[in-house]
Amino acid sequence: MRATTADVFEAMQDDLNRVERRLLEAASIDFPIVSGMVQDLVKTGGKRLRPLLLLLAAKAFDYERDRAVTAAAGVELLHTASLIHDDSIDRAALRRGQPTLNTQLSTGAVILIGDFLFAQSAILAAATDSTRVVSIFASSLGSICDGQLRETLDAHRLDQDRETYEHRIFGKTASLFAGAAEMGAVIGGASEEAIQQLRDFGGDIGMAFQIIDDVLDLREGTQMLGKPAGNDLRQGVVTLPTMLFAADLPEDSPTRTTLEEIIAGEEQRDDVIDDVLAEIRASDALDRAEGIAAEFSARARGRISVVPNAEVREYLNNVVDLTLIRSF
Amino acid sequence: MRATTADVFEAMQDDLNRVERRLLEAASIDFPIVSGMVQDLVKTGGKRLRPLLLLLAAKAFDYERDRAVTAAAGVELLHTASLIHDDSIDRAALRRGQPTLNTQLSTGAVILIGDFLFAQSAILAAATDSTRVVSIFASSLGSICDGQLRETLDAHRLDQDRETYEHRIFGKTASLFAGAAEMGAVIGGASEEAIQQLRDFGGDIGMAFQIIDDVLDLREGTQMLGKPAGNDLRQGVVTLPTMLFAADLPEDSPTRTTLEEIIAGEEQRDDVIDDVLAEIRASDALDRAEGIAAEFSARARGRISVVPNAEVREYLNNVVDLTLIRSF
Repeated sequence: MRATTADVFEAMQDDLNRVERRLLEAASIDFPIVSGMVQDLVKTGGKRLRPLLLLLAAKAFDYERDRAVTAAAGVELLHTASLIHDDSIDRAALRRGQPTLNTQLSTGAVILIGDFLFAQSAILAAATDSTRVVSIFASSLGSICDGQLRETLDAHRLDQDRETYEHRIFGKTASLFAGAAEMGAVIGGASEEAIQQLRDFGGDIGMAFQIIDDVLDLREGTQMLGKPAGNDLRQGVVTLPTMLFAADLPEDSPTRTTLEEIIAGEEQRDDVIDDVLAEIRASDALDRAEGIAAEFSARARGRISVVPNAEVREYLNNVVDLTLIRSF
Repeated sequence: MRATTADVFEAMQDDLNRVERRLLEAASIDFPIVSGMVQDLVKTGGKRLRPLLLLLAAKAFDYERDRAVTAAAGVELLHTASLIHDDSIDRAALRRGQPTLNTQLSTGAVILIGDFLFAQSAILAAATDSTRVVSIFASSLGSICDGQLRETLDAHRLDQDRETYEHRIFGKTASLFAGAAEMGAVIGGASEEAIQQLRDFGGDIGMAFQIIDDVLDLREGTQMLGKPAGNDLRQGVVTLPTMLFAADLPEDSPTRTTLEEIIAGEEQRDDVIDDVLAEIRASDALDRAEGIAAEFSARARGRISVVPNAEVREYLNNVVDLTLIRSF
């Protein structure tokens, strides 16, 4: 019988609670008001997929729980720090339905809080007592920044190819999933081959995760995501579904012209943007993008056989399900 | 005969050149234009005092040059990343006489470039293959952010005490000098007692360095520093000389009222600010602040005896001189 996605959370709840406690300790800042805001933000954090992945990758082999929990807290804190800078850059008002730090504090304070959390996350990585874990950790941060820089400097073109898009979202999102799984496998003392398979597993589900995210951004409204639909488009960021949609538009189509204007920031009227969103939704672009996400997920599932422990294999399958069917 | 400050640079030139090469490699970004800007910024970097300190602290004991050079490049890159965020927060137009990144790129790109360089610096720290070095490195970054947060959230009061000021500048500046010396001593395999003495040596010269910086900010004009005089005051940041000056002003003095208004950002007229700057310069506040810097330097000199190698002791004395007599 196939386990449900609830099983993995039930099985890992105790360890995830330990991650939570380390996370809140590390996110404490010596200014009570700011500290409260940061801790609220940490507490409302999503499903802890990255820590879960790291813990499972370690549990698949020789589970040194304390070191795995420490690294998992570090990975989640790195992710949180990165979101804080990201929201500040995008001037986002909401994150997971909560007001962002940048609506409450000066840009300077927000940058420094992000930096402080990067430092705290690196302290957690170093506490695993493995320079290999620290290297993976630091490389993942480098990849995240590279991906986000690509989004800032290079994502505002309708005619980019899929390789460019995939390169960008690997950096922005999949690199930390890959790094989390790799760190877990390293802490678990897996063989080099198994470490590489788990790293690639993480990378594949990270790719699927981000593609689904890009689909949801175009499909869903404020209530579901805690942010407005079409947010990427409004920021001028071209994602996979938009690329697929645009590829089918004739050169001289008025929709293409409007889309170009939206991406260039020249067209900002909500009703015009909503019309284009409706056209994208009415096309097969979202379904095709979901199909590509499913390909990444299938590739991820193919790698799970490297794990000797049958229970952990089930849980890793649960994690793949989570990246596909999530409504969060 | 006492060595001159030129001697230490001559003796360490070859190793500092190695640091320079590692630094430029690590600061290379996959976007040619941005990469050029960042490398220009790295190249025009000051006297490399932090790498010099780290190299000397290692050379004082068992000099593993490659590891020391790697860590030294990491420390300088961490410092550079921190300056990039700092200039973005302060909206500074010039750094070392050159236009800052934030005058050439969007805030978002500047934040991400800083983050990317943090990541690269952490990769260098991990390449020393010592989790202790990484821990010191990450703690130093945490202290820098804490100090800068204090400056942003808590430095805009005229009635703060010296402890508050010293706590803040220790974080902002002295913590990385302390960390650099500590990392060097750890890499050199020094005894725990010697590591602590060298860490405190670094902390003391860092404190002297920042106090002199705060004095120069009030004393010098654009040409000398590559930024306008009284920059701190214009940002509402109260430093030691201003605190000492204000402590001698009667409660009802018009200068105190004007000073309060400048710090609160209510008074921004250049001629009014220049008048207050002239009053501070005419008082003994700058001399008294320099006296306090000299006390830190003297304390630093007292710690040098822990180093067994006479030549390195001379060079460390040179470094103390550099923090006091610098005109850069």
